Amino acid sequence: MRNYTKIKDIQNLSETIKEAILLKMNPFEFSELGKNKTLVMLFFNSSLRTRLSTEKAAKNLGMNVTILNVNDAWNLEFEDGAIMNMDKSEHVKDAAQVISQYADIIAVRAFPSLTDKAKDESELILNSFKKHATVPIINMESATAHPLQALADAITITELTEKAKPKVVLSWAPHPKALPQAVANSFVEMMQAMEIDLTITHPEGYELNDEITKDTPINYNQEEALKEADFVYVKNWSSYKDYGKVLHQDKNWMMTKAKLGHAKFMHCLPLRRNVVVEDAVLDSDQSVVIKQANNRTYAAQVVLKQILENL
Amino acid sequence: MRNYTKIKDIQNLSETIKEAILLKMNPFEFSELGKNKTLVMLFFNSSLRTRLSTEKAAKNLGMNVTILNVNDAWNLEFEDGAIMNMDKSEHVKDAAQVISQYADIIAVRAFPSLTDKAKDESELILNSFKKHATVPIINMESATAHPLQALADAITITELTEKAKPKVVLSWAPHPKALPQAVANSFVEMMQAMEIDLTITHPEGYELNDEITKDTPINYNQEEALKEADFVYVKNWSSYKDYGKVLHQDKNWMMTKAKLGHAKFMHCLPLRRNVVVEDAVLDSDQSVVIKQANNRTYAAQVVLKQILENL
Amino acid sequence: MRNYTKIKDIQNLSETIKEAILLKMNPFEFSELGKNKTLVMLFFNSSLRTRLSTEKAAKNLGMNVTILNVNDAWNLEFEDGAIMNMDKSEHVKDAAQVISQYADIIAVRAFPSLTDKAKDESELILNSFKKHATVPIINMESATAHPLQALADAITITELTEKAKPKVVLSWAPHPKALPQAVANSFVEMMQAMEIDLTITHPEGYELNDEITKDTPINYNQEEALKEADFVYVKNWSSYKDYGKVLHQDKNWMMTKAKLGHAKFMHCLPLRRNVVVEDAVLDSDQSVVIKQANNRTYAAQVVLKQILENL
Repeated sequence: MRNYTKIKDIQNLSETIKEAILLKMNPFEFSELGKNKTLVMLFFNSSLRTRLSTEKAAKNLGMNVTILNVNDAWNLEFEDGAIMNMDKSEHVKDAAQVISQYADIIAVRAFPSLTDKAKDESELILNSFKKHATVPIINMESATAHPLQALADAITITELTEKAKPKVVLSWAPHPKALPQAVANSFVEMMQAMEIDLTITHPEGYELNDEITKDTPINYNQEEALKEADFVYVKNWSSYKDYGKVLHQDKNWMMTKAKLGHAKFMHCLPLRRNVVVEDAVLDSDQSVVIKQANNRTYAAQVVLKQILENL
Repeated sequence: MRNYTKIKDIQNLSETIKEAILLKMNPFEFSELGKNKTLVMLFFNSSLRTRLSTEKAAKNLGMNVTILNVNDAWNLEFEDGAIMNMDKSEHVKDAAQVISQYADIIAVRAFPSLTDKAKDESELILNSFKKHATVPIINMESATAHPLQALADAITITELTEKAKPKVVLSWAPHPKALPQAVANSFVEMMQAMEIDLTITHPEGYELNDEITKDTPINYNQEEALKEADFVYVKNWSSYKDYGKVLHQDKNWMMTKAKLGHAKFMHCLPLRRNVVVEDAVLDSDQSVVIKQANNRTYAAQVVLKQILENL
Repeated sequence: MRNYTKIKDIQNLSETIKEAILLKMNPFEFSELGKNKTLVMLFFNSSLRTRLSTEKAAKNLGMNVTILNVNDAWNLEFEDGAIMNMDKSEHVKDAAQVISQYADIIAVRAFPSLTDKAKDESELILNSFKKHATVPIINMESATAHPLQALADAITITELTEKAKPKVVLSWAPHPKALPQAVANSFVEMMQAMEIDLTITHPEGYELNDEITKDTPINYNQEEALKEADFVYVKNWSSYKDYGKVLHQDKNWMMTKAKLGHAKFMHCLPLRRNVVVEDAVLDSDQSVVIKQANNRTYAAQVVLKQILENL
C-alpha cells in the first residue's frame, strides 16, 4: 500500500482484515518495523478515538509519533498562484513538502465545510497533501470519507458474524447538529466490497451520494429495513441533496431495543445517548461499539504496517 | 495498588516512601516494566509540574505516554439517562470505556467548580472515570484531593527530617484568587498517616472540612502555631464553609523569614512571590520547594510502578 | 557546548557543519547518546518547522521529548522582587528551576514584542531561563536571534556551493505583517563567521542593528547587489530604527526569476508566495528552501549532540 486515503487503496480486503485480526492477537510482533520512522499526525479538526488509536497503532509498530494541531500553528493557502498578502502565511505546496522532510508517513484529518459541496467533494486539504507531500498519506477522516473507521467496522463484523453473508442495515438517526456524510459513505463502500447483504434506511431527503450507494437497496421504511438484520449500524448525517442541512430530527428514527431485535448494534462514536439510540441498547450485550473502538487500533496498525513494508 | 485516587489507596506508606527514594537513586532500574504499556493523561485543567513529572515518571518505567487536553477535544455528559440533545457530544460512560481500549492506565486532572460544593465533593469527573473505565485510574488533582503532591511531600519530609517525629505546620497564606482545598486536604491526610506532629494555622473562617482535619490541632494564632516548627507548609485555599469564597487576603499571613525561624519552607508551587511568601524565604537554603517538585517524579513513578506490577 | 542561545556558542563552526553533514548521512548513529535524557521544548509562540525538526533531531539521538505550549499553561512573572498579586501565577525563577528537575535540556521559543525595543533586546524570556535553569538552554528563535535556522543555512550553503568563497546576498522582501529581525540577524552573523562574500540589500530605513551588520556592505540598489550572486537569501523584516514598523511593502522588492539570475534561492519559510517571491522561483530547481528545511533537523541534531556529550 502506498497511501490510504480511500477504501480502494486496500489491495486485498479479506487478507487485510485477517492480518488486522492477527495483529490484535499479537500487537507487538512487528515492533521493529517502524523503528526510526516518524508518523506526523496533522489535525485540522480535533479527535479522540482517531488520535489515540492511530498513535497507539504506530507505537505498537515501533514508530515515533508527532501530533500537530494545525489551526494552532498556521493558516494554509490552498489556491494555486495565489498572491498571499492576506491572512494565509504558508502555501500547502511548501508545507506538505516541508513536513515530508520530517515524516515517513503523514496522517491528515480535515472535515468538510458542509456549506460548499463542490469544495468538499474536491477533498481540497487531503488531496493537496497527497499531491505535494513526498511521503505516503493516511486519511484520518476527510470531507467525504473515513476509511480507517470503515476498516475497523469491517474487522468487527468479520470477527462477530456467525453467517457467511450477514444482513447489515445502515440506519439514519436524528441529531441536533449537521454532521458529515463521511462515515456513512465509507461504511457503504466497505460493505459493498464484502460478502454482505446491505440495506440503507433513512427518511426521504437524506439520500447519500448515489455514486457511492449505487445499487444498494434504500428503504424509507425503517421497520421493514431492519427485519432479520444481523448488524445495525446507526449514524446521523446531514442532507447530501440539500447540502449540509438538518432537514428534521425525527425522533421516531432513534434506535431502540425493540427495533433492534436480535441484531448487533454498531456506531462509530461519539454518540448522543437517547437521541441517536436509547440507553437500553447501548448498555446491553448487543452493543459492540466498544469493540469497534478497539478495532480502530488494529485498522490503523494494518494500514501503517502495509505502508511501512512498502516504503 | 489498583487505582491511586486517594491517599488510602497506598497499602504500606512507609515502604512506598522508601521505594520512591530508591527509584530516585536509580530511576531507570525498572525501564522494562512499562514496555508496551500506555499511560493516557487526560487534562480537564492545564498543568505544568504534574504533566512533566508524571510523563517523566512513566517514561522512566518504559511506558508510552499520550497527552489529551480534554476541553480542546470534546464536551462530556456525566448525567445518567440524559437525553443528549444539547452541547454534550459524548457520555463519560462511553468515553471512559473507549479510552480504556487505548490505555493501560488513565490519569485524570479535574479541578473543582468552587461554586457547587455538593458536586465538587462528589468528585463527579474522577469518580465517573473510576466507575466506567476498565483500567486503573490515577488522580492528577481532583476537586478535593491531590494525592500525588501529598506523596511527594511525604517523600521530601522523610528525606530531610532529622527527627523521629518532626513538627510540621500547615500555614494558610493570602492569595488574590479563589483556590481549591485539594492540596491542603491531601497534605493533612498524608501527615496524619505519618509519624508527624501536625498543626494547622489559618484565619477564622478558613477551616478545612472537619471530616479531613479530624482531631488535628488548629490554631488561629500563626505565631504560636509556628513555634519550634521543623517544616512549614504554606498554602492558600478558599473558604470551605463559605464555599469557594476569598474571605479576605490578610497580608499579615504571608510567610516571612522572621516567622519561619529555623524551619524548612515547603510549597507545592506555582507560587506568587511576595504575596504568599517573601523572596527572602524562597531564595534561601531553607526553601525546599525545588526538591518537592523533583520528588513529584518519584511519587508518580512509585505509584505507576505499583499499579503496573498489579496489572 | 553548554548552551546554544547564540551563534558564538559554537566553538568550531566548520567542524560543526561537517559533523552535521555526517549526521545527515547516518542520523541514527548516536541513538544511544540521548537515552533516558529528556528535552523539554517550551513554546511561547507556535511553530511548525522548529517543532518538528528539533523533535526529530532529539529522537534520532534517542532522547525523550516533551512539548509544552506555555501560554496554554501559565502566565510567567519576569520582574525581580515583584509583588505577584495580579495575573502572573509563577515567577520564571521558580519555573525554570522546576522544569530543570524534569529536563536534561530545555529549548525555548519566544518572539519579540516588536513594540518595546529595549525589552526585546534584553532577551528577557530566553535570558531568564538561561539564568535560572540548571540545565542547558537552546534558543528555538528568540526576540533577536534564530541560531538554529542560521546553522541550517550554513549547512545548506556548505553542501551546495561550488566555490571556495561564494557570493551570498541577503535581500529584503515586502510583507503585509511586521516580522522580527531575528532570522536576518542570525543569518548575517553566521555568514560573517564563514568564508562568504556577503552583501545586504534593502530599501532605506530597513537597516538592521549596525552592531550586527558591522562592516558588511549594504547596497540600497537590489539589482546591483544581486549581480553575480551564488546564493540569494530572501527575507522580510520590520524596521529596526523605527522599531517594529512596516515602513512600506514595495512590491518592486519581491524576488523574481529574472532578478535571481543563476543564484540559488534561499528562505527560512513560512513564505507568502507572490508577495515575497514569485511562484516561478519557488517551483524551479534554483529554490533550495526544502533542503534548508531538511537541514533544520541536522542543525538541531548536531547542537543536541554536542550538548549531550558535555552533560
